[in-house]
Amino acid sequence: MLQLNDNYQKLPGSYLFSTIAKKVAAYTSAHPDKTIIRMGIGDVTQPIAPAIIEAMHKAVEEMSVAESFHGYAPDLGYEFLRNAIVEHDYKARGCDISMDEIFVSDGAKCDSGNIQELFAPEARIAVCDPVYPVYVDSNVMAGRCGTYDEKTGMWSRVIYMPCIMENGFVPEFPGETPDVIYLCLPNNPTGTTITKAQLQEWVDYANKNGALIIYDAAYEAYISEGNVAHSIYECTGAKTCAIELKSFSKNAGFTGVRLGYTVIPKALVFGGVSLNAMWARRHGTKYNGAPYIVQRAGEAVYSKEGKAQLKEQVAYYMKNASLIHDGLKNAGYTVFGGVNAPYIWLKTPKHMTSWDFFDYLLTEANVVGTPGEGFGPSGQGYFRLTAFGTQENTVAALDRIRQL
Amino acid sequence: MLQLNDNYQKLPGSYLFSTIAKKVAAYTSAHPDKTIIRMGIGDVTQPIAPAIIEAMHKAVEEMSVAESFHGYAPDLGYEFLRNAIVEHDYKARGCDISMDEIFVSDGAKCDSGNIQELFAPEARIAVCDPVYPVYVDSNVMAGRCGTYDEKTGMWSRVIYMPCIMENGFVPEFPGETPDVIYLCLPNNPTGTTITKAQLQEWVDYANKNGALIIYDAAYEAYISEGNVAHSIYECTGAKTCAIELKSFSKNAGFTGVRLGYTVIPKALVFGGVSLNAMWARRHGTKYNGAPYIVQRAGEAVYSKEGKAQLKEQVAYYMKNASLIHDGLKNAGYTVFGGVNAPYIWLKTPKHMTSWDFFDYLLTEANVVGTPGEGFGPSGQGYFRLTAFGTQENTVAALDRIRQL
Repeated sequence: MLQLNDNYQKLPGSYLFSTIAKKVAAYTSAHPDKTIIRMGIGDVTQPIAPAIIEAMHKAVEEMSVAESFHGYAPDLGYEFLRNAIVEHDYKARGCDISMDEIFVSDGAKCDSGNIQELFAPEARIAVCDPVYPVYVDSNVMAGRCGTYDEKTGMWSRVIYMPCIMENGFVPEFPGETPDVIYLCLPNNPTGTTITKAQLQEWVDYANKNGALIIYDAAYEAYISEGNVAHSIYECTGAKTCAIELKSFSKNAGFTGVRLGYTVIPKALVFGGVSLNAMWARRHGTKYNGAPYIVQRAGEAVYSKEGKAQLKEQVAYYMKNASLIHDGLKNAGYTVFGGVNAPYIWLKTPKHMTSWDFFDYLLTEANVVGTPGEGFGPSGQGYFRLTAFGTQENTVAALDRIRQL
Repeated sequence: MLQLNDNYQKLPGSYLFSTIAKKVAAYTSAHPDKTIIRMGIGDVTQPIAPAIIEAMHKAVEEMSVAESFHGYAPDLGYEFLRNAIVEHDYKARGCDISMDEIFVSDGAKCDSGNIQELFAPEARIAVCDPVYPVYVDSNVMAGRCGTYDEKTGMWSRVIYMPCIMENGFVPEFPGETPDVIYLCLPNNPTGTTITKAQLQEWVDYANKNGALIIYDAAYEAYISEGNVAHSIYECTGAKTCAIELKSFSKNAGFTGVRLGYTVIPKALVFGGVSLNAMWARRHGTKYNGAPYIVQRAGEAVYSKEGKAQLKEQVAYYMKNASLIHDGLKNAGYTVFGGVNAPYIWLKTPKHMTSWDFFDYLLTEANVVGTPGEGFGPSGQGYFRLTAFGTQENTVAALDRIRQL
């Protein structure tokens, strides 16, 4: 009889955001009169910018005529998009990345989850703690994380790098040397980040130890401070040790449009094997490209009009971030983040657990946030609120929280 | 130092269609004056049907306004699409499939490649030979296929079920019992299929042996004969042994739009574990849904207008299939397929190898087809032509081939 991948059974409970969705659904069906304000999942609320809408309409129209119809996309993505990425996200920042190092995909979540397929089963991964759950979960599914300890919430083979109040949310070099280091910077969920000088230390550490950095730059567009790198390739030597993941979800509101890309430099070689070639093979074998219409939408993100419109959109959300940060602080909460990222990370009051605070906020204020422990054991006692709501809802949620 | 997944290094050469693309590019750059007719990769040429274009414009417009903007899609896909699928693809055929057994994705290629993640590393897979290369390649990447023998073109742990002229292209029960049986019916590349009664025998075989069938029904829309099943769930007992993969690429021309779905019945349980629950977990962890615009496009495929327009599109391609089939037959070739699928499978003349015939056709007729051996060792001495070209090109290609 067929035997299944038993690593799936090791995963405790279901995926964080599915659990939240179920809890919220249960509450709303029991209290249909209540108006819930969602500041949980990092989903955006602002509509797609006009320049991008225009590009999509045009692309849809092209698909309606044989002469301009587009079938299967090129394996790595259309050159018009990869070229725009190279020019605006890399050359403009002095990073020497070429078109054949860019792999366009339907989003950074898929790439985050799939990238571990390139590693040997015994590879040891290190993650910031707390962090976006996909890095660990996808490695658990591949059998790379050992066993789960329900008491500590930790996997035996995962190297955790606590990012907590006490160390200013800056990950420290771990005692054991990892093979793969996942860095999400600015960090989800803490909303904090590190300086370019600190990132350079990680690049040096990886190069020295033969480790690979998976650099998730999904929130890059929200960076406001000048001493923070927008790409890891701003650091010297990053091309021999780092893969960069980028999403259009947060800088352009593409959570429902689906577009991302992954950068794998050709200089990234381990034991004589090119990771760029491996990923090209994976792309060619298991993937069939992002939709033409969506790739044209991505191109419009880099147009003059698109950039201007998205700058406003980012500013809109960061205004929310600032409102939440200052509002909660004034209400007596201990808060972090919100300066280089659209997330606010707060200490739960009165030593409540993260999930207790989740239930409390849901039932008493009808506000949905995300329990910190859902992002890793060191997230216990913390809570994430996102700035992706409308300003109206953000202000209303703050009022409700203040009145608790 | 990081060790990589060494299974990738076992893969011989690059992905079939990438190799073809490179050969064609080399030829055209050396002979810029020649006009190539492409009948190689199964890419469509007809534009997207008007009803679908209209639905996409409408969805793009919705995304431009906050009130109708759509962010992250539900994990399994929007209900409007899953409901249309259930009604039109299953209930209408008497198959009892429910909405929570449908998983919407960005295409059957991803699902074909990813589905093997659910199986134990030691699971033995069986494939029709020849067949779509993704089934074997994705299992090779996961280390499930043993070693490759360059002479035979076979993997030591893969169970091959030859589908050749001598057995009428009908797979026979293998000597060794497989854990997973991949069936692509109507078959890519042979363009042949089996009757519903023959499929029922496979369902019975799988249930008896505790095996799982992965049923790839990508070409279902091209079935013209009444005794052929459109879904494996038309067979008794299929819900306890079969997963069905469906694509919108060929029935609706979505190769560049990207949409597919996978059916995993809740009754599909191995060793007490639900494959539906496992896939739901994978979807939630490593995937973020097909674009809203594309899911609305998929819904329009099932509208009254959409169905009528796509019926014409399928008829257009099947006219080509019939032209190629009859034209080659009259020219003295031995040909198969083209009745329930848009593929023509021919014996290469004069005992040429598949790749020799590829080069011959490319250089002498400037026609691109696909070498049979690219689909598996039993494809040696065969060649695939697709009916997805324009009628004009199809007729022109036939003229060129006849003049050889």
